[in-house]
Amino acid sequence: MTRILQSYVQDAWWSPAAGVTGVEVKDAVTGEAVALVSSEGLDLAAAMEHARTVGQKSLGALTFHQRAVILKQLALALTERKKELYALSTHTGATKGDSWVDIDGGIGVLFTYSGKGRRELPNARVQLDGPVEPLSKDGTFLGRHIRTTLPGVTVQINAFNFPVWGALEKFGPAFLAGMPTIIKPATPGAYLAEQMVRIMIESGLLPAGALQLVSGSVRDVFDHARLGDVVAFTGSASTAEALRRHDAVQTGGVIFGAETDSINASVLGPDAVAGTPEFDAYVRQLVAEMTTKAGQKCTAIRRAIVPAASADALVEAVRDRIASKVVVGDPPEEGVTMGSLASVEQRDEVLRQVQKLVDGGGRIVLGEGQTAGLDTAFLDPMLLRFDDPFAERVHDTEAFGPVSSIITYDTPEQAADLVVRGGGSLVTSVASADPGFVAGLTLRAASANGRMLVLDRTDARSSTGHGSPLPNLVHGGPGRAGGSEELGGVRSVFHYMQRTAIQGSPEALTAITGVWHAGAATRDDRHPFRKSLQELRVGDQVLSDEREVTLDDITHFAEFTGDTFYAHMDEEAAAANPFFPGRVAHGYLLLSFAAGLFVSPEPGPVLANYGLENLRFITPVSPGDRVRVALTAKQIIPRETDDYGEVHWDAVLKNQDDEIVATYDVLTLVSKTP
Amino acid sequence: MTRILQSYVQDAWWSPAAGVTGVEVKDAVTGEAVALVSSEGLDLAAAMEHARTVGQKSLGALTFHQRAVILKQLALALTERKKELYALSTHTGATKGDSWVDIDGGIGVLFTYSGKGRRELPNARVQLDGPVEPLSKDGTFLGRHIRTTLPGVTVQINAFNFPVWGALEKFGPAFLAGMPTIIKPATPGAYLAEQMVRIMIESGLLPAGALQLVSGSVRDVFDHARLGDVVAFTGSASTAEALRRHDAVQTGGVIFGAETDSINASVLGPDAVAGTPEFDAYVRQLVAEMTTKAGQKCTAIRRAIVPAASADALVEAVRDRIASKVVVGDPPEEGVTMGSLASVEQRDEVLRQVQKLVDGGGRIVLGEGQTAGLDTAFLDPMLLRFDDPFAERVHDTEAFGPVSSIITYDTPEQAADLVVRGGGSLVTSVASADPGFVAGLTLRAASANGRMLVLDRTDARSSTGHGSPLPNLVHGGPGRAGGSEELGGVRSVFHYMQRTAIQGSPEALTAITGVWHAGAATRDDRHPFRKSLQELRVGDQVLSDEREVTLDDITHFAEFTGDTFYAHMDEEAAAANPFFPGRVAHGYLLLSFAAGLFVSPEPGPVLANYGLENLRFITPVSPGDRVRVALTAKQIIPRETDDYGEVHWDAVLKNQDDEIVATYDVLTLVSKTP
Repeated sequence: MTRILQSYVQDAWWSPAAGVTGVEVKDAVTGEAVALVSSEGLDLAAAMEHARTVGQKSLGALTFHQRAVILKQLALALTERKKELYALSTHTGATKGDSWVDIDGGIGVLFTYSGKGRRELPNARVQLDGPVEPLSKDGTFLGRHIRTTLPGVTVQINAFNFPVWGALEKFGPAFLAGMPTIIKPATPGAYLAEQMVRIMIESGLLPAGALQLVSGSVRDVFDHARLGDVVAFTGSASTAEALRRHDAVQTGGVIFGAETDSINASVLGPDAVAGTPEFDAYVRQLVAEMTTKAGQKCTAIRRAIVPAASADALVEAVRDRIASKVVVGDPPEEGVTMGSLASVEQRDEVLRQVQKLVDGGGRIVLGEGQTAGLDTAFLDPMLLRFDDPFAERVHDTEAFGPVSSIITYDTPEQAADLVVRGGGSLVTSVASADPGFVAGLTLRAASANGRMLVLDRTDARSSTGHGSPLPNLVHGGPGRAGGSEELGGVRSVFHYMQRTAIQGSPEALTAITGVWHAGAATRDDRHPFRKSLQELRVGDQVLSDEREVTLDDITHFAEFTGDTFYAHMDEEAAAANPFFPGRVAHGYLLLSFAAGLFVSPEPGPVLANYGLENLRFITPVSPGDRVRVALTAKQIIPRETDDYGEVHWDAVLKNQDDEIVATYDVLTLVSKTP
Repeated sequence: MTRILQSYVQDAWWSPAAGVTGVEVKDAVTGEAVALVSSEGLDLAAAMEHARTVGQKSLGALTFHQRAVILKQLALALTERKKELYALSTHTGATKGDSWVDIDGGIGVLFTYSGKGRRELPNARVQLDGPVEPLSKDGTFLGRHIRTTLPGVTVQINAFNFPVWGALEKFGPAFLAGMPTIIKPATPGAYLAEQMVRIMIESGLLPAGALQLVSGSVRDVFDHARLGDVVAFTGSASTAEALRRHDAVQTGGVIFGAETDSINASVLGPDAVAGTPEFDAYVRQLVAEMTTKAGQKCTAIRRAIVPAASADALVEAVRDRIASKVVVGDPPEEGVTMGSLASVEQRDEVLRQVQKLVDGGGRIVLGEGQTAGLDTAFLDPMLLRFDDPFAERVHDTEAFGPVSSIITYDTPEQAADLVVRGGGSLVTSVASADPGFVAGLTLRAASANGRMLVLDRTDARSSTGHGSPLPNLVHGGPGRAGGSEELGGVRSVFHYMQRTAIQGSPEALTAITGVWHAGAATRDDRHPFRKSLQELRVGDQVLSDEREVTLDDITHFAEFTGDTFYAHMDEEAAAANPFFPGRVAHGYLLLSFAAGLFVSPEPGPVLANYGLENLRFITPVSPGDRVRVALTAKQIIPRETDDYGEVHWDAVLKNQDDEIVATYDVLTLVSKTP
């Protein structure tokens, strides 16, 4: 008997009651039933409330870094059992390469977010956005922007093409932000998503309520969604439109993110004629985009925009490459490089859209449609050509399979105009070694794209390809592409957080953010370099003695370092400079003296000065001036997996008249133990 | 005869045809007609297309800094003629103080954006978002995010309460972004907006197509809006909802921003009992928010959330302060501190909402409604008290006038919960000197607020107040507050731009961004310090000689500067440090030697090193190692109003084994002329 897939709700596996039949999920290649799926009787409202209560609480107890460490452990747990996922993936019609994009690609997102989370977010629950904004002249009233976790649940409604990657690329950022997730996979491939969740749950790594799975429908999700919740949809533009119109989104404050397939373009530059490395790279990429995942990628190239003079050569080159490199067939079979569509329904839908393209002015110049001898969901790669580049259908119709259309342009401006006619795309690529063409096209078309990729001889081999969203780059796009952003490093973590402007006294801002703000209380009971990370508190401070900077110091430093810039050496020339009263001390001399003034030299918890930020020289120092420095612990970032952490120190160097000479942040590594 | 207001479209003043009667705009105090308004016969589609073509072109010819300079000049032009605006403002029922918020506040936004635009944006047309993302190990494939101007038009649909500020706070950021604006003022006060636009146009400062005005209706705006356009609405939540549902927004990719009045809260801390500075500050602020602009502010306090024990004292204190400080009347009259509502219709609407609050459980504890002896749009300040803090009406009903309601709480968690019940607010304030209470409440309630303000004894006098959006802080909020953001410094400029991920070779990224990327071509024809800003190009480079760092150098530097940190002085102790092989050179010694290596000391175009960014020490330098530095012009930012500009240099310090010792950006000021 065919197995009915389970859901995972309220921290337990759940199956429909006996007698519920469910929907058949068929093998894309054989057409046989792989599993049944149904959420009949599942209490979605309770699952969402479980996330908002139990999930928020358990995730809220963790810092960004603690969550990031769990992401890495989850990635390792999935890696360990990924064979189980690869085995199931063949049922979706995917080749091994296709599965790699889905499975290893998805795991890779978790690794990337784990690393970025620890490098680019503090080890805290609040993120600081931008610098302090002074709001009063006396420094008693400051502004700062913070981000805090949205208090609700994220419900993913995923597409069928990448059951693993599609779930993990949203789960990673949401988890890092501290938001619980409910995954609702598409019905085709739902068995793969179920197994992925099973591995994650069985790892025992997940905090209570952090992850749930609904195998089946979440049709009533918006009836239960409210302010603080996020619904993250991937799929067709038309479904996105229907979902977006719900009251919960329109008036209820539910955040709706949509990433929809779009009519992406790839432009061949006028310089990239046949025989150039750029032409070859363009052809390789176009064929890869037509055949990977049988063209079922929302990022695939639908429009090849090429110079009129190169169109014939391009068709020939694509034909040759497909003939020599592409073998359509059952993925496990030896030599097969392109698998099937996800289902016969999808195959038929693609053929319907191809017919629409033909009716709209396209001529099929390559490919026959249904692959000869294979009567299930197999299609040959198909290339169409439009004589009228402005034909409406080529810019608004998507055949979500191994199908692209060629249109031609005469001028660079026209090429950009054609790109934009897609009405907003996830990605446009351009192959050209002409920097003027590349810059012109990119800047004209960027506002209609979420991502643009430039192929030239330098990156032709290292490029990750037109169709590959990367975790550190934004994925999404305006208009037709859904109008949202995913991925993009920590940018996508912020989609699950609210930005709030905070105004208050330095003391209040310090209390709220955990980061010391100038003007808040300080403590100088003993030298802060003598305190371990556990003892150190923000506001711990050392106020140095004063040191005179003599003309001899300046002259000596110049000779010692070789920095004999005239402003330090020549009184007359220095005085002629608009910024200096005469000979002044080197900035680096002042930094060095400051270090000598604030340092506590004996071995202790401070391990190293690993860098410096935001250095600004404000008032020049003349011979005979005296300087002193205040160094205050500003931010403390213990590491989760090391016995030390980062401490950022606020350094203010002043002269004998209490004028600020320089301000900067000193970055140090400090041991957790004395 | 009453004058019919003009519109300004397609760079010309426009009036309705003779015979068009228009809608009367009445004086709020006298009820007499001030002007007529009508856009009957105005070709809105042509105006929008004019903006997209002529406006985009003229603004696109300017850089961020050039636009910023114009903003300052516009602010000065408005300042010069602001008396005309103040004179018209009295017709709206505004006191002089109210007008100051609107007129000087609006002009202040332009000044702020002019300054921020020049300090925080490059002197270019493309903005770089975030650092380079390496995408291949060999450095040939990089990622970077850029922002480019949206290609359409921004249509403002403004509220009646701040005719000047409401227009300028959106115009400033849009103009800076390079987007043309069409202002559609609310009918009450439309004469004031018309005069503001007139002054701006007559200044002659505006590029063609950059600003248009529609005095009258823009009911069909969405029929003409398309991808790349922005509609920025301010007003009631119900109108925002209706507008948002239009197809142009739902499926057409038009960006719809809404800032709606919300049920804002102000929390009195448990520590802030009567007699404390925080209690006094709370009372002053509450009365100010009830009476300024007669309470017609989307940011005004609607819910006073106070400890049960302090409620009676608060009512008394508010009563006393209103009795002693507030005089309702005709604004120009001596001693008047609170003006009228915008119209008798608004007055009646407020009284209807007050009745709804009463029906929902509120008791009126202060104020009579209609001000005795004044039969037009005057209302007395009114305070209500709800015995049930969870009564639905107090959290969802807004009387958009001088009306607030008191509810009480027992625990800090309950206070935060009550704040959140507003369903998303523009602002919540809290008066408390208890850092624990402040931090707890703020972090619990932040995700439901666009802004939060903490009042304590430190900032009680310097605070700009609960109800005042500031140009450098985000204004807007989730849910009921509209779900959008305005202001917030350059953040709001980015609402008029599209973020796009760019992938390519270093050469391609350099061409697109104008900023040098490591790996792109360099030029070392002569020392770049000898080149003026006009001669210098990104990629201009100096490759230094090598210099050995001796043990004597290290010892000498330590003694000279006083920085005798053990890692530089004590071989054994240094070797015990996890990061050092033994004694190593000071980071500041290496920076200083590097400066000596790359400097060209004679007077020339390089005027000063004003700072340093992103310094990271990578590989420690041991005695006997040799270092050299590559310094490359990375970004060139000529100033518009000075004869010099900023140049950011990429500095890479390497050792004899080609390992990277340190990387940083050197910031210099360079003259435009040799």
